[in-house]
Amino acid sequence: METIRTVAWMKEKSREARQEQRIVGLVPTMGALHAGHMALVERAKKHCAPVYASIFLNPTQFSANEDLSRYPRPIEADIEKLTAARVDGLFLPDAKEIYPQGFSTYVHVEGLSERLEGKSRPGHFRGVATVVLKLFEIVQPHFAYFGRKDAQQVRIIQQMVRDLNLDVEIVVCPIVREPDGLAMSSRNAYLHGEERKAATILHRALEAAATEAKAGVRDSLEVQRTMNKVLASEPRARVDYAEIVDAESFEPVVRITRPAYALLAVHIGKTRLIDNLLMTPEGEELAAEL
Amino acid sequence: METIRTVAWMKEKSREARQEQRIVGLVPTMGALHAGHMALVERAKKHCAPVYASIFLNPTQFSANEDLSRYPRPIEADIEKLTAARVDGLFLPDAKEIYPQGFSTYVHVEGLSERLEGKSRPGHFRGVATVVLKLFEIVQPHFAYFGRKDAQQVRIIQQMVRDLNLDVEIVVCPIVREPDGLAMSSRNAYLHGEERKAATILHRALEAAATEAKAGVRDSLEVQRTMNKVLASEPRARVDYAEIVDAESFEPVVRITRPAYALLAVHIGKTRLIDNLLMTPEGEELAAEL
Repeated sequence: METIRTVAWMKEKSREARQEQRIVGLVPTMGALHAGHMALVERAKKHCAPVYASIFLNPTQFSANEDLSRYPRPIEADIEKLTAARVDGLFLPDAKEIYPQGFSTYVHVEGLSERLEGKSRPGHFRGVATVVLKLFEIVQPHFAYFGRKDAQQVRIIQQMVRDLNLDVEIVVCPIVREPDGLAMSSRNAYLHGEERKAATILHRALEAAATEAKAGVRDSLEVQRTMNKVLASEPRARVDYAEIVDAESFEPVVRITRPAYALLAVHIGKTRLIDNLLMTPEGEELAAEL
Repeated sequence: METIRTVAWMKEKSREARQEQRIVGLVPTMGALHAGHMALVERAKKHCAPVYASIFLNPTQFSANEDLSRYPRPIEADIEKLTAARVDGLFLPDAKEIYPQGFSTYVHVEGLSERLEGKSRPGHFRGVATVVLKLFEIVQPHFAYFGRKDAQQVRIIQQMVRDLNLDVEIVVCPIVREPDGLAMSSRNAYLHGEERKAATILHRALEAAATEAKAGVRDSLEVQRTMNKVLASEPRARVDYAEIVDAESFEPVVRITRPAYALLAVHIGKTRLIDNLLMTPEGEELAAEL
């Protein structure tokens, strides 16, 4: 697997691939790769050749008091994983390559970026949208792969692609979980001792919501109460938000009559985790996909 | 000349041209075409085939109290001019095609967008950057042509292209003027009776500045005073700004030791006009390009 460190060289590689009428796939990551990332790679390998992965710990999506400096960076292990998965190239730029001196252009998806994760992390989605647009311009992928764990991020990227007329198809892949239900996340590495066990409370809260949904409950306040009750049972958990929102607008819903997400953001000790459940009305039933 | 009204069809045309390894040129306009626009088309025709022009009166770059509703829209005359100039296609979308329901993604070049024109017209450059990025994504030009009359706009678009890693080269063309020096502008159509003559005061102020610069004056306050003196001699003129700024940062300069713009924004009656002079130090001399 080739490691590509400059924008110019990445553009050159991608231009070649396009000229040869090949289908370019991109898996954008911040590194610290886990089975969730590798599922994206696997999906990309099925449809695209070449498949590029990018590892870029994007500073503009972290605010000053967040975990940029302590975010895990096991670059050698990451390269091994991508090589084993037969990724064709790793785009691994440094921060100055992406944000050179004088950089000042930002992309903002208004409305969607202000709610939930955006409310808890001001400026986060502006940083995400900006770097993702840049990656799309540099790699020029036909398909780009994102995990549904970051449901709001995916929605914002889809909105940006639509609004800015970008020629890329966003492929959304299911959440990958540990055997005990904890959603895969690079931040799980922060969880120590009892925290690791406590962190399963997110999944357990969503399971309770799924059970209610499948039993026919459409009242979102009722489902929300159920989630909060489960979360309250874990003393190490501090809830940031636990909401039911429309899957398109990410605005709160009263009754679940269209696809909706149950979204959780919960602090376990110093670690902030997110997770979600997608609920889709199908006739009389609610399909609930964890 | 083909008139193309949808994004999908424009993308299709451009994809074809690129697949045939042809060089695509784009001349983005808001219509009401004058000799300045046609000079851009001529320049594009020299390097590109196909050449596309776009006419889109972009609502997001006008604020509520501006002249969007009365902006001239002589579409039949415009089509005649473009046909005579052998433009290959006119991209002529309506507002809903560019800003469909739910549109919410904006591009913002920070810093540069807040000064001068941006200060007088809040939100203006956000609208410009957003629509220009969209046009680039839709038409996928190798070269795009802009007039230097909108010097700050050109600088902002160049910054956006650099920051977002866009694959388009911005070609900046000289200001085209009426025989009496008035810079060509679609808004000149607003000038009635005595106003038309009064409007030459912008050019006369810049000429005075050019004369001083060529005489060796490097003190920007002195040049600015000269311009203001000339402008003050015209009772119909109300100055919005008359400044000497660095051609890169658009920040005020004290001494002209690097390329600088003299920038004017002046109201003549109800019509707001802009014009500029580019000053380039060459050894002991200042080259001044009106």
